[in-house]
Amino acid sequence: MPALSDFDITETAVAPLKEGELLLKAKYISVDPYMRGRMSDAKSYVQPFEVGRPLNGGVIAEVAESHNPEFMPGDIVLGHLQWQEQQVVSAEQVKKLDKNEAPLSLYLGMLGMPGLTAYFGLLDIGKPVAGETVVVSGAAGAVGVVVCQIARIKGCKVVGIAGSDEKNAYLRDVLKVDEVINYKVEKNLKAAIARACPNGVDVYFDNVGGSVSDAVIYNINNKARIVLCGQISLYNSLDLPTGPRLQPVLLKRSALMQGFIVSNFAPRFGEGIKQLTQWYSEGKLTGKETIVQGFDKLPETFIGLFQGTNTGKLLVEIPG
Amino acid sequence: MPALSDFDITETAVAPLKEGELLLKAKYISVDPYMRGRMSDAKSYVQPFEVGRPLNGGVIAEVAESHNPEFMPGDIVLGHLQWQEQQVVSAEQVKKLDKNEAPLSLYLGMLGMPGLTAYFGLLDIGKPVAGETVVVSGAAGAVGVVVCQIARIKGCKVVGIAGSDEKNAYLRDVLKVDEVINYKVEKNLKAAIARACPNGVDVYFDNVGGSVSDAVIYNINNKARIVLCGQISLYNSLDLPTGPRLQPVLLKRSALMQGFIVSNFAPRFGEGIKQLTQWYSEGKLTGKETIVQGFDKLPETFIGLFQGTNTGKLLVEIPG
Repeated sequence: MPALSDFDITETAVAPLKEGELLLKAKYISVDPYMRGRMSDAKSYVQPFEVGRPLNGGVIAEVAESHNPEFMPGDIVLGHLQWQEQQVVSAEQVKKLDKNEAPLSLYLGMLGMPGLTAYFGLLDIGKPVAGETVVVSGAAGAVGVVVCQIARIKGCKVVGIAGSDEKNAYLRDVLKVDEVINYKVEKNLKAAIARACPNGVDVYFDNVGGSVSDAVIYNINNKARIVLCGQISLYNSLDLPTGPRLQPVLLKRSALMQGFIVSNFAPRFGEGIKQLTQWYSEGKLTGKETIVQGFDKLPETFIGLFQGTNTGKLLVEIPG
Repeated sequence: MPALSDFDITETAVAPLKEGELLLKAKYISVDPYMRGRMSDAKSYVQPFEVGRPLNGGVIAEVAESHNPEFMPGDIVLGHLQWQEQQVVSAEQVKKLDKNEAPLSLYLGMLGMPGLTAYFGLLDIGKPVAGETVVVSGAAGAVGVVVCQIARIKGCKVVGIAGSDEKNAYLRDVLKVDEVINYKVEKNLKAAIARACPNGVDVYFDNVGGSVSDAVIYNINNKARIVLCGQISLYNSLDLPTGPRLQPVLLKRSALMQGFIVSNFAPRFGEGIKQLTQWYSEGKLTGKETIVQGFDKLPETFIGLFQGTNTGKLLVEIPG
């Protein structure tokens, strides 16, 4: 588990702007579970962070100064940027956002990477069919809340698993998830899932891994699809996590388990953003956020991801 | 593990033939790993065997007497039949075989269920591309030998894993498998697979499960496909088998793991048999068999499946 003592906030001079460059002031900085994987040098799909260098990830920023004719001070941009209050970037590193389409922070959540992750993972791998049962773990997280809502739009029965009654009340009352399960209080999670899914589980969208996922997988139907999106319960393990071997279940059920990262679908991001934005404008999709104030809160906010403190997208706003 | 004492051979009278029925004399009886699953009442894709009733499975038989105009004494038929020396069946239960196309026993192996399992599992789920690396566990088994050969036909590098030097010599020298690994003598199987697969593993056709599969899966490439065909190493487990959690690897590699049974592809069996028969007639596919003589050898032959005694398809011939 990362600790506050692993983080340091330092001051450095901002380089002068060259031709074509922009000076950006961060407005919203995203903290995401996948970043934990970058804090290890194990082979993965993203480069590890370097000790002594700023972290980086999804950032929404305002243009403070521009040496590029395409950008004006006051423009809002989105990019994969450093965790810095100010930074100089070349214009190709960022994308200009429309300030009037949606609240800006949604471009780090429902209308950004987590939304696209939910959209492609559920629809392209999970392939839910109206009337089927979709179970979502980490259902109250940034990706999970979007998965739950898209599954409902597609006419599925949706069962959400989360770790607090508050999160589950939100899922049930606001997102209209059909059944909710608090994995922290259920003594027999496998039986609880069987009760919530009398017709079995057709699609399992897995954000957490570990024993929660075991309990779901023992309830899958024939030809079930298991979408491996995250394994947050295991990210801080020191030892190699072990558990029941699940291949015999997948074999007996002719089930599919597929891992993915959202960048696999990069050529189709335009399609995803367009559909998510349309659902949002029609009121079918709502983008729950947990916003923490202050650049200095980044370390503890990031650590909070693994303590399950957030409902919906977790991000840090930099005031001013 | 099934024991000889779990089996019994009894004599019963054969019922008289009714209109449309056939009296069959068994010639070849297939023993298959999937039958072990039918010796348990756990929910599965096939009905459990009933204690006190004959086992049943793939059988090639000769028509001894016919009350059906479509069949003549001496005709050879294939069907899912009882483990009996003689039995009366209705004609719809069996399919007539061409005695001149191929040795009859191959219809229980390469040109039958194991061949179709290899064909659809490898091509439809594994989707091997020329130049990719395909690893096959249980490579010397009835399904494995066909998978190895189809992967070579498709232009892949093929790495076979089996449990004896004799099996591996057959894979290497007769089937021209590129690399072979004896999992029983390798101290570090993960490293052995890494050495045999310098470009990583693109397709893993898994007949065995357990620690052999773990070692392969730690070597998979991005977008690898894992075909779950069998888990023979686990079929006789008394406890729930445990092992390392593999979802984090599947997630990091955007890999697919898919269980299947051959009957998922039943509408396309004609296509599969046609292609397998063509490859056989062109000499591209050879059908290794281990044939044991005598009806009374069925129990020990079946048990031998789990002791790894066979190379290629294992079956029992009933003389006379």
